[in-house]
Amino acid sequence: MAAMASLFIKTPTPSQPLPKTHRITFPTISRLSYSYKQKPIRVSCGLIEPDGGKVVELVVPESHRDVKRREAMSLPKIKLSRIDLEWVHVLSEGWASPLTGFMRESEFLQTLHFNSLRLGDGSVVNMSLPIVLDIDDSQKNRISGSASVALIDSSDNPVALLNNIEIYKHNKEERIARTWGTTAPGLPYVEEAITGAGDWLIGGDLEVIQPIKYHDGLDHYRLSPSELREEFSKRNADAVFAFQLRNPVHNGHALLMTDTRRRLLEMGYKNPVLLLHPLGGFTKADDVPLSWRMKQHQKVLEDGVLDPENTVVSIFPSPMHYAGPTEVQWHAKARINAGANFYIVGRDPAGMGHPVEKRDLYDADHGKKVLSMAPGLERLNILPFKVAAYDKTKQKMEFFDPSRPQDFLFISGTKMRTLAKNKESPPDGFMCPGGWEVLVQYYESLAANDSGRVPEPIPA
Amino acid sequence: MAAMASLFIKTPTPSQPLPKTHRITFPTISRLSYSYKQKPIRVSCGLIEPDGGKVVELVVPESHRDVKRREAMSLPKIKLSRIDLEWVHVLSEGWASPLTGFMRESEFLQTLHFNSLRLGDGSVVNMSLPIVLDIDDSQKNRISGSASVALIDSSDNPVALLNNIEIYKHNKEERIARTWGTTAPGLPYVEEAITGAGDWLIGGDLEVIQPIKYHDGLDHYRLSPSELREEFSKRNADAVFAFQLRNPVHNGHALLMTDTRRRLLEMGYKNPVLLLHPLGGFTKADDVPLSWRMKQHQKVLEDGVLDPENTVVSIFPSPMHYAGPTEVQWHAKARINAGANFYIVGRDPAGMGHPVEKRDLYDADHGKKVLSMAPGLERLNILPFKVAAYDKTKQKMEFFDPSRPQDFLFISGTKMRTLAKNKESPPDGFMCPGGWEVLVQYYESLAANDSGRVPEPIPA
Repeated sequence: MAAMASLFIKTPTPSQPLPKTHRITFPTISRLSYSYKQKPIRVSCGLIEPDGGKVVELVVPESHRDVKRREAMSLPKIKLSRIDLEWVHVLSEGWASPLTGFMRESEFLQTLHFNSLRLGDGSVVNMSLPIVLDIDDSQKNRISGSASVALIDSSDNPVALLNNIEIYKHNKEERIARTWGTTAPGLPYVEEAITGAGDWLIGGDLEVIQPIKYHDGLDHYRLSPSELREEFSKRNADAVFAFQLRNPVHNGHALLMTDTRRRLLEMGYKNPVLLLHPLGGFTKADDVPLSWRMKQHQKVLEDGVLDPENTVVSIFPSPMHYAGPTEVQWHAKARINAGANFYIVGRDPAGMGHPVEKRDLYDADHGKKVLSMAPGLERLNILPFKVAAYDKTKQKMEFFDPSRPQDFLFISGTKMRTLAKNKESPPDGFMCPGGWEVLVQYYESLAANDSGRVPEPIPA
Repeated sequence: MAAMASLFIKTPTPSQPLPKTHRITFPTISRLSYSYKQKPIRVSCGLIEPDGGKVVELVVPESHRDVKRREAMSLPKIKLSRIDLEWVHVLSEGWASPLTGFMRESEFLQTLHFNSLRLGDGSVVNMSLPIVLDIDDSQKNRISGSASVALIDSSDNPVALLNNIEIYKHNKEERIARTWGTTAPGLPYVEEAITGAGDWLIGGDLEVIQPIKYHDGLDHYRLSPSELREEFSKRNADAVFAFQLRNPVHNGHALLMTDTRRRLLEMGYKNPVLLLHPLGGFTKADDVPLSWRMKQHQKVLEDGVLDPENTVVSIFPSPMHYAGPTEVQWHAKARINAGANFYIVGRDPAGMGHPVEKRDLYDADHGKKVLSMAPGLERLNILPFKVAAYDKTKQKMEFFDPSRPQDFLFISGTKMRTLAKNKESPPDGFMCPGGWEVLVQYYESLAANDSGRVPEPIPA
């Protein structure tokens, strides 16, 4: 892993002052047009401002930790699940800026109804997923009149304080319907984190006692938004384009990323940097686990498919909702906070099959359409994904050419997984051999293990 | 009915030029506070501007009607249901301004996800309910490549043209989940208008051939937003407060309306006018039908419970969704377009019982909370409903006094209906005797009729 870890400490271009005031016209890749006339987009060089003006960091200074730990011991306690801890991690580093903790009712309602929050100055930031903490009746009773509670991990260690708390009803049906656009049984996040949850939500301001770590050998990949911003500044990035993923990288993805960089250079950017940003939190059982995906991404970089000089690989700590057009807004918004001003959006982002019916849960085009119209994301440049497929004539992944469809082969995620499970090889040029080998190893380990899934790291 | 009809042609205060630039501070009744500091609200005298700057009226000039009728005959035809016609009526008069017809996909998606639309100039208007027209596969095939279609009524008469059409998928499950926050069977609007609907939606620009009329003796109550604005201007209203209702008016409502006027006068308004605005479109089977409600409202005014001098009674042509916090935004937004700058919001507005579970579908406080935070409604002053109940010591409806709860009797809608059905009398002072008599007559007519419900008028 050392080779990969070094990717984001390299600073290939020597430091130069960022041309902060220079603006360039950005006419060719534009936000999807709505019914009104499109103005040419102007992008300021330098890093995009975080939502609310600053990255909200909620970890207490080292000197205060002992005091806070003792304070926590005296408070009513709430035990956090694995997903709760992932959200504490997300909140603590400011991915959800300007949120200062688990949502209060006014934030929860705005999220469900408007996918956005209005701030004190009247400005609007995007917020599409509820970031909430549930408690049951007995926990609520134990809290009684306390203004603060302690959040503890599975070993009863205090993780955070939640202050100035607000307890309100958790209408699970309404939350699910408004977040996923369905209440069908079988939604992975719902089954994991909502169905069995308590009937109350508790909001408040978080004080996190120490940085959240997983001790899984991957913590050095978990850069916070501030650390990423520092890295982009060090590299003199004048454009940062984020690529969210939760799957192995194949050469179609790589083509897209290198092509995006080429286009940004053509537009006049001097040093566009790619944020290759695999999701690190909860994923559904048949997704490839984080540790194997990171091994695969490492091979892709070692094999030279992506250029380490202008690529930062980091882990996005959020859990996955599989909530399609609603969730893709969260994925984009969080990357603004990490300094990305370009966001690549694919076909059916954060989508999955309908859990009950034989169809995709979301229209494949709705993700990018909703993203392009979302309140609070006006500053972000949306880059719609071009469709890449295997070009049989060139024996490599190429952008699909509708004038000669017979030359192209579409290899779906399901097809890819089936091939790897059966130790079959995909066509040459679909994925670098080292990356493919990792996938085959993963499925071998599954078969050997028989438990069906590698255990996931738990934040602590 | 003549007596009541005359209410809105009276002009009690002689015409004076409106003090359009005069603004007064409005500190005591304010929008519900969110987490930010509340600025004192400033309200301009004169009428509030409609969404998008003008009331969009879609009825073609009289001189064009024959041409448009002939044009319609040559186009593919879509037969409208009763509810479709109600929406044509709503759109034709500009209640949904700035919409120019049934929603296109970009409007539909923004409505479902954001409850608002972003306009060409970057401003945002509220739009919480999908106003859409569904078609099935065979209708879609018949339309083929035509850019326009004719909308016809049940007798095949052309009602409107829909131009520059756009056909897109109708994901009913997602529409229902995101609009109602549930997909439970038994939602009245869903059963009436969505379950059996086609799998496609057709958007476009409407040209309505002639004003929509119902010929039920109530058309003179159906004032358009422009007609209402004219009436308010004629009366020199410097504040218009709207009261949406779909139930008989009892003295608790009346107390609230007269008290609101008193408070507005105290604040410095010279001539606040009440828009008593019963909903006239589709309602569920156990609601009192429009014709009986209008008779009841007439009695309430004849009995002097409300003052005709400063009350305008009119019918709001929209159908009812019973979608609680989502729908109350529509109810408020439409009244902005009709000139109302104050909106009275009650407990559980547009709510109903959960169709399957034994509880209310929505939290009783969510309606006013969501309304107070809704994008595009910042200009509207929300007046939260004070709870009125029957004060046994005073033998009349009074605002509930929590210091002496034992003195108050709460009479629910269900209780009221049960009393009227059984020809029992409510306590003296609950409703004016003339109004109560109308209710009793309605339930007698139901029993005699046995069909269970009086047929509703159909727009034509």
